[in-house]
Formats: sequence, C-alpha cells, structure tokens
Amino acid sequence: MGPGTLYGVGVGPGDTELLTLKAARLLSEVRIIAYPAPNGGESLARRIVAPVIPETARELPISIPMVQNREAARQAYDRAVEQMSSHLSLGEHVLFLCEGDPFFYGSFMFIHERLSPRFPCVVVPGVTSLTACAAAIGRPLAARNDVLRIIPATLPEERIRAELEQADAAAIIKVGRHFDKVRALLEELGLAQSSAVVEHATQGDQRIFGIDDVPDGERPYFSTILVYGGGEPWR
Amino acid sequence: MGPGTLYGVGVGPGDTELLTLKAARLLSEVRIIAYPAPNGGESLARRIVAPVIPETARELPISIPMVQNREAARQAYDRAVEQMSSHLSLGEHVLFLCEGDPFFYGSFMFIHERLSPRFPCVVVPGVTSLTACAAAIGRPLAARNDVLRIIPATLPEERIRAELEQADAAAIIKVGRHFDKVRALLEELGLAQSSAVVEHATQGDQRIFGIDDVPDGERPYFSTILVYGGGEPWR
Repeated sequence: MGPGTLYGVGVGPGDTELLTLKAARLLSEVRIIAYPAPNGGESLARRIVAPVIPETARELPISIPMVQNREAARQAYDRAVEQMSSHLSLGEHVLFLCEGDPFFYGSFMFIHERLSPRFPCVVVPGVTSLTACAAAIGRPLAARNDVLRIIPATLPEERIRAELEQADAAAIIKVGRHFDKVRALLEELGLAQSSAVVEHATQGDQRIFGIDDVPDGERPYFSTILVYGGGEPWR
Repeated sequence: MGPGTLYGVGVGPGDTELLTLKAARLLSEVRIIAYPAPNGGESLARRIVAPVIPETARELPISIPMVQNREAARQAYDRAVEQMSSHLSLGEHVLFLCEGDPFFYGSFMFIHERLSPRFPCVVVPGVTSLTACAAAIGRPLAARNDVLRIIPATLPEERIRAELEQADAAAIIKVGRHFDKVRALLEELGLAQSSAVVEHATQGDQRIFGIDDVPDGERPYFSTILVYGGGEPWR
C-alpha cells in the first residue's frame, strides 16, 4: 500500500460559499481533516467549512502559537507534522484547511516544506482575501498596466514607505496591530483618501472603512488595506 | 418592479472544479449569462462553466476585439452594455462570467464602470491564475514578509526591469507576445533560474517550463511567469 496524499486546500476568505467545488468534494472524500487553531482558539478555516464538514470526519486541530515566538511555532509545526505523517504513512489521506489560498502568505508552507519531500502533496488554490476585499469595496484593485504591490504590514516603516511611494496600486496585508503605523504612513504620503480598510472580508462581521474613520489602535488580524492608484478617492 | 442585478462572477483559472459554490449556485439561478468571446472565438470563461451551465440559460456572447484597437474595443463594450441594460431594465438579472477574478486585471471593469452607476451590481471573487500557478508549481510564491509585485508584461522594458530589480518575489502576467522581451530581462538580471513559466494553469493542456526550456516567440495569452525570490532555483 502506498502512502497517503497530503491535500493543502484553500477555503477562501470567510464565506462558506466561496469554497471551490474541488474543496467541497475533497472535504467529503478525505476523512482526516487538519487545520490551524491559533493559540488553541477557534479556527477560522474550520469555521468556514463547518456547514459542509461530514460528521464522520476525524479532526486534527493544530494549535499554533500566534505570538512572535519562533521556537514555539517551530515545535508546534514539528508536532503537527508528526501527527499527520503517521496517518500518511498508513496510506490515509490528510486534508489541511488553509484560510484563503495555501500558497499566498499562508502558514501551510511550514507544513508543506516538511511533508512534501516525503509524501505526495496536492495544493488546491482558493479565493484570496485580496480579491474578496476588492469585490466588497466594489472597485477593481488593479487593471490594465498597473503594477500591484502586496505589502505585509509587518515590514519596517521605511520599507513600506518606499514600496508605497512608487506603487500604482497596493494591498497592505496582515494589518492587525500595525494599523497606526500604516495609517500614519498613508497620511504622510497623501494616500489616505485613496485607501480603504476591509475587516473580516466576506464574513458576517465584514466592515469597510475609510482610513480616517477607523478608531486608533489594533485592528483584527484579518484586516487588509487597499490603496488605489491615480490619486482618486476610493469611494 | 425594480431593476435586475448585474453579477460579475469569477469562474477561476480554467478547471471547472475551481468554481466557487457561489458561482455554481448563481449559474443555476440567473437565466441570462453573458461572457466575453475574444474576436468572436471560443470563450474560456464559457468553456470553464460548460459542465454546469443549465440548458435553459439564455446566453449572451460578447465579441471583444483583442487587438490593440481601443476604439473598436470601446464600441464592443458599449454594445454589450446596451444589450445587458435592456435586460436589467426589465428586472432580469444578468450574470457576467469572468476568467479568474472579476477585479484582478479583468475586463469586467469595463462593463462594471458603465453599468454600476445605473444598476445594482454584485461581484463574486474567484480563484486567480496567480495562486493557481503557484499550486501547479508546488511552491509558495510569497511568504512571511515578502513584498510581491504583480507586473503586466505589456509594460515597457525599463519599467519591468526596475520592478524586478527590487522585488522579493514577482508574478509577470499577460505574457503572450511579450515573452522574448521578458525572458531577455530575466536573464540579464540573473533571475532565469528562479523563474518558472506556467501556461494554461489548471486546464487540460497546462504546461510548466523553466525559462530556458521555452521555445522562442509568442506564448499563449494565459501564460504567467513566477519569479521566486532569494536567488534559489524554482525547482
């Protein structure tokens, strides 16, 4: 008997209906379903698929520390990989749920880099929060000859400034606790009116703000800022 | 009776199974289905949904000139919009099929900018060819603190060079007849070994090449080059 296959499956940004037909089919076929549960709390990926997960599924929640503790995170991934590889070695397939898309800034890469040298892996792309945010706002983010830059808010201020200064259009991701820093930069660069904040895109609690309408302080981890080019206001 | 709603629906990069559940539901509910048919030829968007399109659908193929003739394209969109608005005015919903995602470099914007001031519009995001290409290659395109740049190959050589010189990771889209120019640039910048070409991602005729393995000359319009950062080879 050959080994099982690891499926890294994108489940989209939040709305269950944004699952692909392929993700839905695999969820009905693969019995072992693993997913990240930040700090052991509720898993967004698990919540997205809740309406379609079979009762017979065997679930493997993987507690991932979200704090800046690289060693703790490494150990968590090592443990998760051990669990999954024991199933894969027995010829059982394992489906790993990924918020958005598995290979678009996803933590699935830490699973993939450990397991893909040893087991067959199939990656199923999903809808990213990036295009979900543009759809929610109702305005195309990039078109024609625009260069679009995707900028993690976790980068140092200087780097973000340099990227924004030359961008036709930009999406700032992983905003969370970096919101105040990013807003100050957008204001400094005269981009505040061209920027929209989308929180929890396509989820029940989705909110869309102008950059000046957001209260100070930390925002949800799943916040994205779209910076429209051309100097026009985003609304 | 109120006006109908225009639905701009992303149908993903090519594999019918990468339709979202929402796209599949709307296809079964909305009777009038419009789609672009480049130069009156076969429509990729139509082909993607062929297995799930109801027999009762009323189809509205829209012939869009793909040549660099702006005036002809403008007229084609004006005619398409006239057809669609006559249905919308009668309270009939219209579903417009978009390859990939409607607001990610899609031509739906030309429909949306004409119709959204007059009729309710709903945009349903889809899987982009970008993440489908990364899944096909089996390697994450961007991770952690990478800035990802999405660069249309239609841009002048100097601009593409400048973007590539400073990129952590890049995706070059709309490669088509610009392939030779882009390859020469990637070689000049020492990025050839880090670059992979994906043609017709997730379609039956999907192909993945190293940049040096591609024959000279025009490539399919649906070609994307992923440029991996860190100076490592892509394989």
